[in-house]
Amino acid sequence: MNHKPETISDWLYEYQNGVRYGLEGKLIIEEYSPFQKITIFESKRYGKALLLDDCWMTAEKSEKCYHECLIHPALCSSMQIENILIIGGGDGGSARECLKYKEVKSIDLVEIDLRVIELSKKYLTSIGGNAWSDSRLNLQIKNGINWVKHTKENSYDVIIIDGADPIGPSKELFSNSFLKDCKRIMKPGGVLATQSESPESFQEIHINIIKVLREIFDYADPMYGSVSIYPSGLWSWTFASMEKAKYMNPKKSRVKEISQNCQIWSERWQQGAFNTIPAFIERELEKQ
Amino acid sequence: MNHKPETISDWLYEYQNGVRYGLEGKLIIEEYSPFQKITIFESKRYGKALLLDDCWMTAEKSEKCYHECLIHPALCSSMQIENILIIGGGDGGSARECLKYKEVKSIDLVEIDLRVIELSKKYLTSIGGNAWSDSRLNLQIKNGINWVKHTKENSYDVIIIDGADPIGPSKELFSNSFLKDCKRIMKPGGVLATQSESPESFQEIHINIIKVLREIFDYADPMYGSVSIYPSGLWSWTFASMEKAKYMNPKKSRVKEISQNCQIWSERWQQGAFNTIPAFIERELEKQ
Repeated sequence: MNHKPETISDWLYEYQNGVRYGLEGKLIIEEYSPFQKITIFESKRYGKALLLDDCWMTAEKSEKCYHECLIHPALCSSMQIENILIIGGGDGGSARECLKYKEVKSIDLVEIDLRVIELSKKYLTSIGGNAWSDSRLNLQIKNGINWVKHTKENSYDVIIIDGADPIGPSKELFSNSFLKDCKRIMKPGGVLATQSESPESFQEIHINIIKVLREIFDYADPMYGSVSIYPSGLWSWTFASMEKAKYMNPKKSRVKEISQNCQIWSERWQQGAFNTIPAFIERELEKQ
Repeated sequence: MNHKPETISDWLYEYQNGVRYGLEGKLIIEEYSPFQKITIFESKRYGKALLLDDCWMTAEKSEKCYHECLIHPALCSSMQIENILIIGGGDGGSARECLKYKEVKSIDLVEIDLRVIELSKKYLTSIGGNAWSDSRLNLQIKNGINWVKHTKENSYDVIIIDGADPIGPSKELFSNSFLKDCKRIMKPGGVLATQSESPESFQEIHINIIKVLREIFDYADPMYGSVSIYPSGLWSWTFASMEKAKYMNPKKSRVKEISQNCQIWSERWQQGAFNTIPAFIERELEKQ
């Protein structure tokens, strides 16, 4: 890979444990922020894409299968959805999906790396869409761990954890202490949503985050889907709530509000996705 | 890629529409049969793998997420499962899964390419397992299209179509005339199962096979899962039957017989997988 922008087509690969996943296209920019290596690549297949530390994060024509799945099970089911917290999510896709709901009054988007936002705004324009100019969105260029630590209890209806793999700056987003803080600042009747890695490529991390969430919250369940640019393609998101597994029961009025514009997500899809837990993961979770 | 076997590690890629999926390992054999290019590659991640015409077909440590999903919804639900027909399936994985059921009395495995069977027997030993020596298995090295054309009606309880993409020798396995013959030779109360491609990478083919099956059979429904070595990772299988959507209702006794040894498939998983139809595919199927 020649790292200088070229007009001819090239290939960019992510390596993960004996597997390479590559897209054809051309490099637009590659730089180092204080936190990570950031790459913008224009791919033929999925349009402009973002990589952090050489891992595919999102791409214009592939991002819905990730963002819809992270956001709608939480936003459709939380008792209220006035105040939302997004940790990470610097590409703007999670905020965009949240802002589709009229009931949402404010979103704090706490992203550690300003350059991810700047480059996403400039190059991945369709991912953030109108979110960046929506007055309900409050950008906070801060460390999410500290943010939740210093937020007072019962502050948010929904908490979205939209971070990268638990290496580099996202590591703490999978920790017990961070998730306990999330529970403390979540309002009664609220829902927490986190991406929870691939049960195939990151089995241990996947099982661990479910177990930790089940210790902290009354209910936590993984949901499975497909993100072709992520390792193994099989991906998961885990939802947590108190008193009831709220995320299992989307409110009809909200489903109606958003489903016609969804590419992957539907009420039916979601119901299925909570059940497609691979047998080997189900057995692992039953152990303990 | 150096095509002579080497001891050092190398990479082998499948190309599909601007995407490359590669595994690290070493080439074991590459040759041309009268029908196709056949490659056996020893990968670090998924063990020994088979490619046909440069496309990943199966690998020792990844095949269950394909074979379990193709076989068990059909075998668990068909009224009887004494006589099975498998078209393709030369790696032996589909036969192995079918032979787990005590009720199965005979399997006709009709594979067009003897070399696929010979090389699978020799190198992919864990995929065929004991199937090759099971007296219930009848190998037929023949063209599957002709086989169904010349088989008398009501011959099989279950028909499994386990072919490659509909280019090359598998093209006709997606045709109207072939599938009509399948219906004719299927016993009342039976179930047909076919792999039906990726709704993401092969959307048109995927939708077409469902529509064709719905024209021929009373019921046909797609089921979605994940096969990491296939284009986009998201994969589908479609099941068809007469009178009722039988494949939706696995028999408890058979579920009990096989589920403890499954890696991906469970009754719960299957129920979910029939519902995780992406919203854009559901809309396409509702048209017309």
